[in-house]
Amino acid sequence: MASKLYYAGIDLGGMSAKAGLFDPEGKMIAKSTVKTCKEEGFRATAKHLAGLVRELCSAAKIPVSSVGGVGVGTPGIIDGAAGIVVAWTNFAWENVPLASEISANLDGIPVRISNDANAAALGEAKFGAGKKYGDSITITLGTGVGSGIVIGGKIFEGFRGGAGEAGHMTIVVGGIPCTCGKRGCFEQYASATALIRDTKRAMFEHKESSMWRISPDPDTVNGLTAFTAAKEGDAAAQEVVKNYIMYLSEGILNLVNCFRPQAIIVGGGVSGQGEYLLQPVRKYVDEHLFVGFDRIPLAIVKAQLGNDAGIWGAYALAANV
Amino acid sequence: MASKLYYAGIDLGGMSAKAGLFDPEGKMIAKSTVKTCKEEGFRATAKHLAGLVRELCSAAKIPVSSVGGVGVGTPGIIDGAAGIVVAWTNFAWENVPLASEISANLDGIPVRISNDANAAALGEAKFGAGKKYGDSITITLGTGVGSGIVIGGKIFEGFRGGAGEAGHMTIVVGGIPCTCGKRGCFEQYASATALIRDTKRAMFEHKESSMWRISPDPDTVNGLTAFTAAKEGDAAAQEVVKNYIMYLSEGILNLVNCFRPQAIIVGGGVSGQGEYLLQPVRKYVDEHLFVGFDRIPLAIVKAQLGNDAGIWGAYALAANV
Repeated sequence: MASKLYYAGIDLGGMSAKAGLFDPEGKMIAKSTVKTCKEEGFRATAKHLAGLVRELCSAAKIPVSSVGGVGVGTPGIIDGAAGIVVAWTNFAWENVPLASEISANLDGIPVRISNDANAAALGEAKFGAGKKYGDSITITLGTGVGSGIVIGGKIFEGFRGGAGEAGHMTIVVGGIPCTCGKRGCFEQYASATALIRDTKRAMFEHKESSMWRISPDPDTVNGLTAFTAAKEGDAAAQEVVKNYIMYLSEGILNLVNCFRPQAIIVGGGVSGQGEYLLQPVRKYVDEHLFVGFDRIPLAIVKAQLGNDAGIWGAYALAANV
Repeated sequence: MASKLYYAGIDLGGMSAKAGLFDPEGKMIAKSTVKTCKEEGFRATAKHLAGLVRELCSAAKIPVSSVGGVGVGTPGIIDGAAGIVVAWTNFAWENVPLASEISANLDGIPVRISNDANAAALGEAKFGAGKKYGDSITITLGTGVGSGIVIGGKIFEGFRGGAGEAGHMTIVVGGIPCTCGKRGCFEQYASATALIRDTKRAMFEHKESSMWRISPDPDTVNGLTAFTAAKEGDAAAQEVVKNYIMYLSEGILNLVNCFRPQAIIVGGGVSGQGEYLLQPVRKYVDEHLFVGFDRIPLAIVKAQLGNDAGIWGAYALAANV
């Protein structure tokens, strides 16, 4: 069987875990989810994740013994080499040996873990928008700004998994307070949350804006509101979008000046704007880069795998591809 | 001779090149310099650098054939793998094959090149303040803010050598204009140049400050002025120092949140303040880090090799140690 191994990839979250089973050719042949909750503790969570893998094997009609490895992307600070969750604040996990615990529930099948944003970045790098590039950074514009760094086709974890918290780069010293306790973090300007906050502010400052027609109730404002109105020519919305693009570009510039990857991959809800978002970002980055595009090419592209990026990355981790 | 090879390390600059010759035990046994100038072009510069190595060999009474390799740290964007200076603006070099040109003048001895800040960082990482750490980032607080990233004992160059331009991270969007054409770059707040600018401003705002006694002529203000007055208890100087430390710490925080090295090594003139500078920096970073010192240790230490860091790093590059 050794030459025909299957692999499982799991994307662990605070509400649920999603998993995929991959055949020896690297095709996803089964997919399933299981609920997760903080109260049950890490041993029960590990048992549920192992159960999820067994369930996938049943569905695919293969024995568990033909699974060569399991990869898991999990929130928190992860020490991948040691297989330990150093800290996952939401679940109050500290120094939890997640990899060995799942493995113990799966007849000793090797389990590798990494941070969830890192796993998603690896998925995009290997199977999505980053396929052509050995070095890429994926940033995810959602509730916060997640990021994962892939260098030479491998996740760059830093010391004890602490790298890749680009959402908490300061881009405005003394700026907007962040949940991390610092001020002026990138995610306070470039997350969907930030975009929604700025959209609402602009609406209250501009009662004439067509954003009011799109979202008559401010509570229904989302990441689309300002973009939709901006495309219709609404000046207040265009200002919101312009500012958002500036801050997003400044954060990308920082990553490029520090890491100089071959590609920046932009994912998360806001990336749904596609070229309407990315084209001006490229222009801004091009105009402000320390050494311009003319000398070192840089791709800024939209993520391709959506919510499955984490599963694909966890699979890459497990199969070491 | 193959088992008893010598190596040369060269630190190339716009005014001069400094070189050291290292014996098979890694001891620096000879040192010399040669003038450099923009006008002579890269072929003449390469010839001078080769001559410098020959001169060192003569001084040490060894044949050139016992030199196993030459390392060069040079300004600009460097593609180390290709041995090419992609761009060195001050010397108007573009896509210059520096490594092969030096090698051709030295009977084919292998020559490896890297960016000068990277070489200095490698020197500190291997032989100076970073000896205990596999992953470290060295920042140099001088006219600008230079930086070099060492991961797993190797320089992290990024795509075509573009990584490690941390001095041009934006820490204040829309902030102070930088020579790079962007605004709010780290080096506009944390370089010695920035410190001197802010010292002068504070002096003109505070005619009573003891900074006027230390530097009666504003043109003689240097990186020591504010620190000296602050230690004497001068309030205006203490404010300058406090702000400087805040901005320096914010930039360091960005590097730590992105790369999570084991150590940040601080060099350049301002680092001469030692613990008076570093102790409050550690406190600020500790208080604002995404995940604190308690979970992942981080060292913030003073560089040890001074102006020789580049020579030592170039030697490490040559000897691949």
